[in-house]
Amino acid sequence: MSDSVSTISIGELAERFGCELRGDADVQVSGVATLSDAGSASIAFLANPLYASQLATTAAAAVIVHPDAAEHCPVAALIAKDPYLVYAQIAAELYPLATLTPGIHANATVDPAATVPDSCEVGPGAVIEAGVTLGEGVLVGPNSFIGRDTAVGSYSRLVVNVSVYHGVTIGERCLFHAGAVIGADGFGIAKQPDSSWLKVPQVGGVTIGNDVEIGANSAVDRGAIEDTVLANGVKVDNLIQIAHNVRIGEHTALAGQSGVAGSTTIGARCLIGGKATINGHITICDDVAVTGAAGITHSIKKPGIYSGGIVPMDDAASHRKNSVRFKQLDKMARTIKKLERAVFSADKPGD
Amino acid sequence: MSDSVSTISIGELAERFGCELRGDADVQVSGVATLSDAGSASIAFLANPLYASQLATTAAAAVIVHPDAAEHCPVAALIAKDPYLVYAQIAAELYPLATLTPGIHANATVDPAATVPDSCEVGPGAVIEAGVTLGEGVLVGPNSFIGRDTAVGSYSRLVVNVSVYHGVTIGERCLFHAGAVIGADGFGIAKQPDSSWLKVPQVGGVTIGNDVEIGANSAVDRGAIEDTVLANGVKVDNLIQIAHNVRIGEHTALAGQSGVAGSTTIGARCLIGGKATINGHITICDDVAVTGAAGITHSIKKPGIYSGGIVPMDDAASHRKNSVRFKQLDKMARTIKKLERAVFSADKPGD
Amino acid sequence: MSDSVSTISIGELAERFGCELRGDADVQVSGVATLSDAGSASIAFLANPLYASQLATTAAAAVIVHPDAAEHCPVAALIAKDPYLVYAQIAAELYPLATLTPGIHANATVDPAATVPDSCEVGPGAVIEAGVTLGEGVLVGPNSFIGRDTAVGSYSRLVVNVSVYHGVTIGERCLFHAGAVIGADGFGIAKQPDSSWLKVPQVGGVTIGNDVEIGANSAVDRGAIEDTVLANGVKVDNLIQIAHNVRIGEHTALAGQSGVAGSTTIGARCLIGGKATINGHITICDDVAVTGAAGITHSIKKPGIYSGGIVPMDDAASHRKNSVRFKQLDKMARTIKKLERAVFSADKPGD
Repeated sequence: MSDSVSTISIGELAERFGCELRGDADVQVSGVATLSDAGSASIAFLANPLYASQLATTAAAAVIVHPDAAEHCPVAALIAKDPYLVYAQIAAELYPLATLTPGIHANATVDPAATVPDSCEVGPGAVIEAGVTLGEGVLVGPNSFIGRDTAVGSYSRLVVNVSVYHGVTIGERCLFHAGAVIGADGFGIAKQPDSSWLKVPQVGGVTIGNDVEIGANSAVDRGAIEDTVLANGVKVDNLIQIAHNVRIGEHTALAGQSGVAGSTTIGARCLIGGKATINGHITICDDVAVTGAAGITHSIKKPGIYSGGIVPMDDAASHRKNSVRFKQLDKMARTIKKLERAVFSADKPGD
Repeated sequence: MSDSVSTISIGELAERFGCELRGDADVQVSGVATLSDAGSASIAFLANPLYASQLATTAAAAVIVHPDAAEHCPVAALIAKDPYLVYAQIAAELYPLATLTPGIHANATVDPAATVPDSCEVGPGAVIEAGVTLGEGVLVGPNSFIGRDTAVGSYSRLVVNVSVYHGVTIGERCLFHAGAVIGADGFGIAKQPDSSWLKVPQVGGVTIGNDVEIGANSAVDRGAIEDTVLANGVKVDNLIQIAHNVRIGEHTALAGQSGVAGSTTIGARCLIGGKATINGHITICDDVAVTGAAGITHSIKKPGIYSGGIVPMDDAASHRKNSVRFKQLDKMARTIKKLERAVFSADKPGD
Repeated sequence: MSDSVSTISIGELAERFGCELRGDADVQVSGVATLSDAGSASIAFLANPLYASQLATTAAAAVIVHPDAAEHCPVAALIAKDPYLVYAQIAAELYPLATLTPGIHANATVDPAATVPDSCEVGPGAVIEAGVTLGEGVLVGPNSFIGRDTAVGSYSRLVVNVSVYHGVTIGERCLFHAGAVIGADGFGIAKQPDSSWLKVPQVGGVTIGNDVEIGANSAVDRGAIEDTVLANGVKVDNLIQIAHNVRIGEHTALAGQSGVAGSTTIGARCLIGGKATINGHITICDDVAVTGAAGITHSIKKPGIYSGGIVPMDDAASHRKNSVRFKQLDKMARTIKKLERAVFSADKPGD
């Protein structure tokens, strides 16, 4: 793969991405930068109010800003209602996806019974087993593995060191990062009378839609009987565990180190915070947001924001004191009830 | 590796696995399916009451059911006290372990001073260093690594992209999934007077018993001085951290993203829930269950179920309100005490 | 790589590491051992009071002890104020880093446009892309990958199966364990009007200082615009997520399964406990310790120990009861206030 960075005028950017332009349309930019570090060939953006104070002194060629911030912009402004989205669009323009170097590397191992179009790039150390079908323009990066009978849609990319087991179906334009594992066995074990475990064969597969991104060292297990399913546009960050038979709806995004236990269904357009834990065998409806590190123990039937799991940070000494009280909470609640009865009941003296 | 699926009559299955059969013993099944998706060549099971409602309409050839559910089964029934275990046994029969293709792949790198029986399969990109000893029928899958002087017992399988460091001992019939790392250095560092860290050499190894399964991207560190030890039958799910000098007893199972800190001993037949955190330098006795996401901070001397760590899920606004109160808990407790004294003390008017 | 273990007299060890010696200076030791397992050729240490009871019966040749414990040592004693640090120094002496076997393995793939000094060891299956620059004595272990234009400083070691993306800068004497991923894309996605996500190109890199250790299956993402930065001496345990644009100061150590969300800055000499979650866009000052599994949601401006996140472990039934009350905490607090007013207000009878 190789990079290439284009140069473009801010006038053309404004037009192409529907922004109002304040400033010289002919200014050329060749890259993006932060407000604080930008030079005269860079475009910056302001989306998070945390960084608003950096606007006044930026040396960027232009800044993508919300209408409310435009008047404070000391340089050319591309005014947009969603500056972050426009930034993403412009960055995608300036930093297009690296183009592939088609061909199968001499140090790759591709079974003759695999289908690998000429437009694919198969890197050194990559292993493709029999019955695998790749679409056009697929990247199977160095030391990546695709097990037998797995299908990978066009323009999907397994960057490096990705393991995709047998019998998996992957859509188009997916992006899997280093160490991602798709289709390892689900954790199915049955207790035997002697207390040892009998492994339950995991005979389902994994079905992954189009435009799915899976981060470094995340794992999506194969189903026990039916497939584990990630719908179109699902985005999975790093070090995430998705257990067998989980189903995740379109455009749901999961942040780093979150985990979803077996047979749970998550709806579309959900946002799962980092390190959140989603129990098994529950259903979460569409449009639910789960805060970071939350523990979701029951099904959710109403869109909204859900928390739980953790209690607030504190200095360690205070936390220890309050934590001790947590273990007395039920007792405290009962005492309060008794007090209420004693203090507020009709026959109390003074009432 | 390759699959094979057998066909078998439900009469034979009933006999072999000790079930009472209701229905036509000659019905043939060739696979397993869920109650809702099963067709006439599939056997299904009902173990989790969550799915009981699917029994009435199943099109399965037969269903493995508990005696209590047998009368509701609209098709042939294999009646067993533990339907999930019988399901596991039947699935293992119908989906036997893939057989190996013995031999060392041309793209593997095997040191001449390693012992690799002819019955082993060593995949492309696999690397086996000097002094390694493999038992019969071992699978060293694509791009897997085994460091010098490590021993792997017969019929163990490193599926793909597994890293086993030097000086590790692995038993028979183990199964290690993609990205599993066995024997990396424990996290031993000593603070120096200038605040920098001095690495503490990790000179212990790892000893793993028979029938141990380790999930995708899990890590079992080598010991600082003595070995980290996983006894026979231990089952480790995905993305789990087992730190140096941990010892885990027979048939203990750990669910995804749980972690065990250094020098902790966990007994036999324990169940560690997903994302649970087990502190270092503690001892957990046999037959302990730890709920998901729990934080286990102290030794446990009595079998039972232990929780802690997280508080219940809630809508985010309520959680925020209650969380604020958590930080006032100790103060609340003291106020309650004061109230109790004022309201219930002997000299209170009206008593 | 290969090991070598030296033999040395305890007199020389005492002198070299500034310990007071009680016992025969000529006693030779060739290895380290625990107090309970040591034989007559081993040196042991006592640093954690948990193991003090093992001192009386040790069969070690010598024990490194704190002055307070010296009188209880039944064998030769090396007396030091920080026995663990002296142990680390002696162990490093007895177990020096394995020496490399310089050269590029025939099964490695090294681009002709990469700079690989003769003193480097490049293992089988390793892949080094164009523009990569390695310092002297670098180890690129089996099946490891280094993307184009990345620089790795002298004597750094990528043990096995490490993935370092393009455009990363790594200092000297770093140690990266199996499955570590450096420079994968940060999790940058922008919501589009149709609810699908647009990927935000991650055009920053990663800058890693000298003497940084990164554990098995940990991930350090590349920056969105600027670099993610780990300063000199940072120590990262296993299965840790470090998101884009995080900055971590010198000699800060993070324990297993902790995670740092995007754009957060952590100061120098911090200790982040296992499974701790550090929110994004916050700043933690120097010399902060965060307890295990804590959730750090806000910036910290004062050195100290911080907790939060989890509540204490308990038996599951008690935890369930108290957890229910957690959801009533705000209501309880209000009731207490009402009671206080009723009981302690001036016009209450009896006051």
